[in-house]
Amino acid sequence: MEDRVRLVHGAGGLFMQEFLDRFILNFFRGSGFEVPLEALDDSAVVEGVVFTSDSHTVRPLFFPGGDVGSLAVAGTVNDLAVLGARPTALSCALVIEEGFPFSDLERILSSMRDTCRMAGVYIVTGDTKVLEKGAVDSLIVNTSGIGFRSPFLDENFRIVEESRGVKVGKRWLLDSNLRPGDKLIVSGTIGDHGMALMAYREGYGFAGDLQSDVKPLNRVVEGLLKVGGVVAMKDPTRGGLAAALNEWSRKSGVGLELDESSIPVREGVKAACEMLGIDPLEVGNEGKLLIAVVPEKAEEILEELRSTPEGRDAAIIGEAVDKFEGVVLKTEVRGRRLIPPPIGDPIPRIC
Amino acid sequence: MEDRVRLVHGAGGLFMQEFLDRFILNFFRGSGFEVPLEALDDSAVVEGVVFTSDSHTVRPLFFPGGDVGSLAVAGTVNDLAVLGARPTALSCALVIEEGFPFSDLERILSSMRDTCRMAGVYIVTGDTKVLEKGAVDSLIVNTSGIGFRSPFLDENFRIVEESRGVKVGKRWLLDSNLRPGDKLIVSGTIGDHGMALMAYREGYGFAGDLQSDVKPLNRVVEGLLKVGGVVAMKDPTRGGLAAALNEWSRKSGVGLELDESSIPVREGVKAACEMLGIDPLEVGNEGKLLIAVVPEKAEEILEELRSTPEGRDAAIIGEAVDKFEGVVLKTEVRGRRLIPPPIGDPIPRIC
Repeated sequence: MEDRVRLVHGAGGLFMQEFLDRFILNFFRGSGFEVPLEALDDSAVVEGVVFTSDSHTVRPLFFPGGDVGSLAVAGTVNDLAVLGARPTALSCALVIEEGFPFSDLERILSSMRDTCRMAGVYIVTGDTKVLEKGAVDSLIVNTSGIGFRSPFLDENFRIVEESRGVKVGKRWLLDSNLRPGDKLIVSGTIGDHGMALMAYREGYGFAGDLQSDVKPLNRVVEGLLKVGGVVAMKDPTRGGLAAALNEWSRKSGVGLELDESSIPVREGVKAACEMLGIDPLEVGNEGKLLIAVVPEKAEEILEELRSTPEGRDAAIIGEAVDKFEGVVLKTEVRGRRLIPPPIGDPIPRIC
Repeated sequence: MEDRVRLVHGAGGLFMQEFLDRFILNFFRGSGFEVPLEALDDSAVVEGVVFTSDSHTVRPLFFPGGDVGSLAVAGTVNDLAVLGARPTALSCALVIEEGFPFSDLERILSSMRDTCRMAGVYIVTGDTKVLEKGAVDSLIVNTSGIGFRSPFLDENFRIVEESRGVKVGKRWLLDSNLRPGDKLIVSGTIGDHGMALMAYREGYGFAGDLQSDVKPLNRVVEGLLKVGGVVAMKDPTRGGLAAALNEWSRKSGVGLELDESSIPVREGVKAACEMLGIDPLEVGNEGKLLIAVVPEKAEEILEELRSTPEGRDAAIIGEAVDKFEGVVLKTEVRGRRLIPPPIGDPIPRIC
């Protein structure tokens, strides 16, 4: 299996990072655009246009709290928004297995339409391929998206620069923007999406309590940019908070210290994770923001988040520090524990 | 099977058109952008950005003259170019079956890179999903793309307007732009891609002679725009020339008359089509342009095409006429024959 693609190569962790280095970046780096492929941020920026793409292979297609349609729209909208863009238009490319029921297709398309309306975006182009029975597991939805610089981004960065006393290089919300002192905020409980899928798929008794958090977050993001002082943002999907924080630490060259007790985790998710031996920090989310903000603005950003339904459970969970030693969790019982980049998300096919 | 998706719904013909109406347009029309989804053109235009998406499911992955990688890049580049855009950046979203050989992946990525270089575009963003064995037939490549208005497009339309004495509405190369008198040009022999795949797949003896025409055409397009007078352009893939011409006829409300003897078809393709009872007009192409041009400029456009390697075999094949009766083929032996929109491309999984 050494010279073949493995499941873990698509699971959002260390193996995927190596895979992207060896294959994707090796062939495609070097465009010279403002935010290029090799930044490996949530979106690229090309002549002012923010651009991203995701193929959605979630199973099952319908799950508690959402379906592949809401996931496909929200996922792409969020990837655009967390870079500082106002998402504008999406594509929808369907690969459908012959025999797929029209009724399921209608449910999925109507969920896409509803999620588009929530986000204020439109599907403007697309493609439909139908494959013979057995050539694809029912349905894959690719949504790519474009957006334009948020009108609040310049003023947001003016506040960051005022706090730091230095210019910020590219003035997009990049993974490489963090500096010691920045506060880390999560917009709500973590692990909901992955554990809801896991529990539902496996038919665990507690499944009824767990719901995916899938949701477009662009309006919340815009509210935060209006407050200002946001340094970076991320949509912690595959590999969860652990993958996202390690990416920030590595790309920004800062250590990140987290307070375990401050990280919001729903009781049901905590119980399920303990039962299954899964770390909720490594579980994917689809409706949560990870935010880095200059210290002076942390409380205001938190307040703004908590004033929204999507950010009700937001919390300050830690900060960036000078010692570059990756991501460290301060726990009440065991002291300091290193959170390494996950090998990959423990739950397959969550997005 | 009445209430389920069928292969023909993705085959680029009449059934696909009905499918798009009933499902895609029904849910997603109404964005109000410059060239919206409901134009069903090769790309959309959103605040000046030309945007398109295609999922590539061709089989086999490697075929005479190309592979899924060159196809994915050229296909998306061409969809942008035929609207009048200069293609700029692409996404690459891979859905890979577990166990896919690294060596094949490298061949495909290097072919994508080479095709990008030919076209002068970059892959700037993407996504990688790996599915368990059996969940997808080896590899699907989605490429979405963005481009910006060609600097030669305004002058091109000035020449069109001079010829017609009236303004052109949206000044992109749209399917609805044709008017009686416009000349129809094809940039080379038709049916090469589809028949090469068919012959290779089925192991026919003549397979060796047939090669896919897959090729990025954006530089050729730009040369034509410099000449000026181009009214519309199309990349006649699934459903071939017959589907593309019927789309023009319907959307522009003009009849189209073709001279059968002037349509370039390679001898091997003609022979294969006759043997299999397939109309070469309905077979997909991946490196050909269908062009409508004002009559004063037809010869100059033809000359410009013939001066390029991609357009060596270009020919004027007919014209738009006042009688709106669809697409009519004038043949030497049988007189006039109506070319109806095909039900779907006769050859499955060509792109």
